Amino acid sequence: MKRIAVLTSGGDAPGMNAAVRAVVLKAISEGIEVFGINRGYAGMVEGDIFKLDAKRVENILSRGGTFLQSARYPEFAQLEGQLKGIEQLKKYGIEGVVVIGGDGSYHGAMRLTEHGFPAVGLPGTIDNDIVGTDYTIGFDTAVATATEALDKIQDTAFSHGRTFVVEVMGRNAGDIALWAGIASGADQIIVPEEEYDINEVVRKVKEGYESGEKSHHIIVLAEGVMGAEEFAAKMKEAGDTSDLRATNLGHVIRGGSPTARDRVLASWMGAHAVDLLKEGIGGVAVGIHNEQLVESPILGTAEEGALFSLTEDGKIIVNNPHKARLDFAELNRSLANLK
Amino acid sequence: MKRIAVLTSGGDAPGMNAAVRAVVLKAISEGIEVFGINRGYAGMVEGDIFKLDAKRVENILSRGGTFLQSARYPEFAQLEGQLKGIEQLKKYGIEGVVVIGGDGSYHGAMRLTEHGFPAVGLPGTIDNDIVGTDYTIGFDTAVATATEALDKIQDTAFSHGRTFVVEVMGRNAGDIALWAGIASGADQIIVPEEEYDINEVVRKVKEGYESGEKSHHIIVLAEGVMGAEEFAAKMKEAGDTSDLRATNLGHVIRGGSPTARDRVLASWMGAHAVDLLKEGIGGVAVGIHNEQLVESPILGTAEEGALFSLTEDGKIIVNNPHKARLDFAELNRSLANLK
Amino acid sequence: MKRIAVLTSGGDAPGMNAAVRAVVLKAISEGIEVFGINRGYAGMVEGDIFKLDAKRVENILSRGGTFLQSARYPEFAQLEGQLKGIEQLKKYGIEGVVVIGGDGSYHGAMRLTEHGFPAVGLPGTIDNDIVGTDYTIGFDTAVATATEALDKIQDTAFSHGRTFVVEVMGRNAGDIALWAGIASGADQIIVPEEEYDINEVVRKVKEGYESGEKSHHIIVLAEGVMGAEEFAAKMKEAGDTSDLRATNLGHVIRGGSPTARDRVLASWMGAHAVDLLKEGIGGVAVGIHNEQLVESPILGTAEEGALFSLTEDGKIIVNNPHKARLDFAELNRSLANLK
Amino acid sequence: MKRIAVLTSGGDAPGMNAAVRAVVLKAISEGIEVFGINRGYAGMVEGDIFKLDAKRVENILSRGGTFLQSARYPEFAQLEGQLKGIEQLKKYGIEGVVVIGGDGSYHGAMRLTEHGFPAVGLPGTIDNDIVGTDYTIGFDTAVATATEALDKIQDTAFSHGRTFVVEVMGRNAGDIALWAGIASGADQIIVPEEEYDINEVVRKVKEGYESGEKSHHIIVLAEGVMGAEEFAAKMKEAGDTSDLRATNLGHVIRGGSPTARDRVLASWMGAHAVDLLKEGIGGVAVGIHNEQLVESPILGTAEEGALFSLTEDGKIIVNNPHKARLDFAELNRSLANLK
Repeated sequence: MKRIAVLTSGGDAPGMNAAVRAVVLKAISEGIEVFGINRGYAGMVEGDIFKLDAKRVENILSRGGTFLQSARYPEFAQLEGQLKGIEQLKKYGIEGVVVIGGDGSYHGAMRLTEHGFPAVGLPGTIDNDIVGTDYTIGFDTAVATATEALDKIQDTAFSHGRTFVVEVMGRNAGDIALWAGIASGADQIIVPEEEYDINEVVRKVKEGYESGEKSHHIIVLAEGVMGAEEFAAKMKEAGDTSDLRATNLGHVIRGGSPTARDRVLASWMGAHAVDLLKEGIGGVAVGIHNEQLVESPILGTAEEGALFSLTEDGKIIVNNPHKARLDFAELNRSLANLK
Repeated sequence: MKRIAVLTSGGDAPGMNAAVRAVVLKAISEGIEVFGINRGYAGMVEGDIFKLDAKRVENILSRGGTFLQSARYPEFAQLEGQLKGIEQLKKYGIEGVVVIGGDGSYHGAMRLTEHGFPAVGLPGTIDNDIVGTDYTIGFDTAVATATEALDKIQDTAFSHGRTFVVEVMGRNAGDIALWAGIASGADQIIVPEEEYDINEVVRKVKEGYESGEKSHHIIVLAEGVMGAEEFAAKMKEAGDTSDLRATNLGHVIRGGSPTARDRVLASWMGAHAVDLLKEGIGGVAVGIHNEQLVESPILGTAEEGALFSLTEDGKIIVNNPHKARLDFAELNRSLANLK
Repeated sequence: MKRIAVLTSGGDAPGMNAAVRAVVLKAISEGIEVFGINRGYAGMVEGDIFKLDAKRVENILSRGGTFLQSARYPEFAQLEGQLKGIEQLKKYGIEGVVVIGGDGSYHGAMRLTEHGFPAVGLPGTIDNDIVGTDYTIGFDTAVATATEALDKIQDTAFSHGRTFVVEVMGRNAGDIALWAGIASGADQIIVPEEEYDINEVVRKVKEGYESGEKSHHIIVLAEGVMGAEEFAAKMKEAGDTSDLRATNLGHVIRGGSPTARDRVLASWMGAHAVDLLKEGIGGVAVGIHNEQLVESPILGTAEEGALFSLTEDGKIIVNNPHKARLDFAELNRSLANLK
Repeated sequence: MKRIAVLTSGGDAPGMNAAVRAVVLKAISEGIEVFGINRGYAGMVEGDIFKLDAKRVENILSRGGTFLQSARYPEFAQLEGQLKGIEQLKKYGIEGVVVIGGDGSYHGAMRLTEHGFPAVGLPGTIDNDIVGTDYTIGFDTAVATATEALDKIQDTAFSHGRTFVVEVMGRNAGDIALWAGIASGADQIIVPEEEYDINEVVRKVKEGYESGEKSHHIIVLAEGVMGAEEFAAKMKEAGDTSDLRATNLGHVIRGGSPTARDRVLASWMGAHAVDLLKEGIGGVAVGIHNEQLVESPILGTAEEGALFSLTEDGKIIVNNPHKARLDFAELNRSLANLK
């Protein structure tokens, strides 16, 4: 393989740049030329493709977001979109692709591979909800940023003796909420993977103040449950009488310079993707499992360890769906000092 | 003066702890005993008062919020509240008070002074909207925190080619928006001190994209204008067709470890408050003007340099109201590269 | 077990406070009383012991260092010291101990257990060089702090076209250097676990400038190799002609607010230590291996999975010594774009 | 004026990029073309000059160092060097220059102006030691970075009951030491502008421990006094018996993302430099005094407010030399709680 390309797809995540940099530098060290594709699959189809070299990635390791820009492009699920994309790859003599993004991006990588263009997926999202890896690129940074924000809210909550409902991102996954909640000493963490009883939530708030154990109260709420305002309204309905505020950390936790850990994981996986392409391997996703690099077939049977299988009528099955660490939910309860 | 007390009042602000620490340490060095009053004037009236020493303030210089806690307590505007407070001060032998907070806190300080308990005000708020000082304690930190958040939002905005309306605190003042807007390279800054035309805002967004000069667009919005969601809705009504998001930095910018600058200013003003009380001076507010400490009578005539005057029918006039730096608004326009 | 104690020993590390907090809160939730021991084993022997409750640990989760203070106390290796310590524990009715620290601390824990006071060790050090765990408490923060400092040095190195030798802590281990080196895009990483040739180091510096690939050059040096000044002097001897500076990040990377990850790991391990003591288990060290909690006998046979064994003549053998990730050294070379 | 250039000279400082960005964007808004000169006066003489536009400065506002790179180039003090530089400016049709740097840079600006190429100086250095301004670009960031490092050293000093001598940059000025010392609650601050008695330093350390007031002790030392190791050695000679460590913050405090305040000041001054050039004004340096923009003739008489004058025999006199705020030294002593 003499020429490869790299793109970022889906929501941006800190560390995507670190992964792109690793792809570029590793490829150069292997004598492979690298091209960048702007705005994900959309840019591939439109031919928004340009040469990358070491100078171009010199300053991006510590930068948040993705300098290749990203975009959602559902059209790539259709054969027509795929063929247009391939046309462009051919134009540049590109033989393999590294795709950094989420589930949707992996399916695109599968399609490219099936069309004879080996593509390797890297898990890039803050939500940590991608199968085939213990950690996604961007998750550690999002947890760090959310924790820093929660530390600041603790200052105000303490100063005024207030209750805060703080919403954090994570799509349908509670991982960011669980990690950032433990890291910031949250009194309660509400995630979509667990049932909760709003009356219990309110009772605990009350109990904390009345026992004199708590001078303030922080509830970390995963966005997959509902919005902070809505949750606070439900608490009021359920009888909360504390000085209650709702706040949403919002888009702030998507950005920012990646943590050292995210940069290391991204560099490690990025370099490995090039190793795979070099050997002509595509249709796989790279991940970190038990502190080691792993790769899994994107599509296939459960027995083969594939991330996804197809049913007879063409539906996608996730073979080993991502699970939040509910032992961490339990851990936090055991530290919250609330009956 | 042998015994003084210190309290924080109104919204919490980073650096309040640094000011309290300076009051305590300076008082000790002058042979004066110091007491802390919890929860502002409410705690004074309830007698929530305790001895402070060097050990107690050893670790607070770098902490956000106020370890004395704060509370709004409108009852202190009434004579009855004041007399109860004075009763408590007498119980502890307290002869003077340092009050860290906003306008309302200053009026309380004035009342205490009139009752024979000299009280000195220090400007503590993130909003920078207090008369008698160029900078309030907490402003520099709030600007720093907002700027850091805006840097992160830039990452996402760039990565996806989006337009963001980002709301920042500041009550009726645009200072945080102006400083953080310039510091983060905002494309537009909307503050309550200036008129704006929503059609012009939308036109500039469009112009930026169409000219190819802007790949994304950030609008920093002071909360004194309206909420981010509302502003974004108005933009859509006015014809905005960009990928527009609204986000509110919210309470995050109230907290956090104070910047070095805030710690220095707070320490400087806190120590000076003790100097004043030591000489029996009360009814004044300390500030920083042109890089020097200044003190102003809280109540009096404009000629005396008082911050507030009373009209014949008892209304409060602000003699020299706080003004946002509209030259900074102009500066940002000249850098925004938008016609 | 009705009463336990917790101490920190050896060099301080960010996250020790988070671990202490978890021990305290978990114990309270299990109905166990907790005592803090100041200054490690020295404080135990001197009876510097005090009651801990939830309020006392309310604010420490985010603080660096250890509020229990730490001290090295070699006398605890002697029976006499141990008996004095036990005397003190008895005085307070303490039945079990959590010890947060390094190898030496583990041996003390073993001795206490042998004397009938079950003690559990937690790995607390920035160096990541403790057996029985993939990560020590404080390592992630030290890597983060070193990376942040290296990012800053990159600014200056780039601005002036300079070569920097940057020394980072880690005692005899290269882990901090390897992680922070990759995370900051170091051109070369020198660790004690690998041979290096000073002529090769100098040749690569030269090659980088002469090929036009590098405008500046950063060498991350683990302290276990030698000091930065000494290394720079050796480079000059070996013919380096670049604008070379040596700097030592020094003690700065020991301190600071722990990262979210360190707080989570510390909380997790701290809570588990209480679970073990509750069941009367001592003489074990808790660790994280493959994303799960593990515990290992501190002393025993290799077959039992013990961390240490004794030879017949009483020497200590480390059964499964800590190894730096030399695959990361290789990874960095493959990204450094240097021949 | 249709074409101007901008360069950075002397030591790099955070905020230089923000100033360059402001020069570029303001010039564009005034219809002026802008060129960047790499590596200061050296690059000017060598013709290392290139066109700048808005895209090129899009991402640099938040970056430390100077993307134009910097270099010391004493040859520009000679006529020959100047004439070569002018030759290059002519080649590109450049009519005016903005020079960001220190004293030496200002003299170069004066020379260019005398040769008919109006040049405006902006104060860029972390040391805050440039005449004609209350604050230099980079100073606030250096203080912030030093304070953050000192906060971390406090963690370790407290944890082990140690004394630390911490050296901070500042060339011959004590400003960084004074501000960062106050901001971090240093016990003693030693600056070149004040005499000190090593026996007194040691006595205070001892007094702090013996009185029980101090559990640890931090001495912030400006590099203009001497190195940290040397100072610690002198303390030991003078009888210090504490657990004493010396550390040098070193180059770390030169780099890093500029603070919001530095970005605002740099943007403000950068834009103003273009205003001046537009009117054909050169030979002046821009500064901030009492919260307002000021400009001063670089060379002239004291009466004219010039920064420098020449004696009859050609020596340079500094008319109003920079003074450190010794009231801050006094403030810190009054807060240090040491007799």
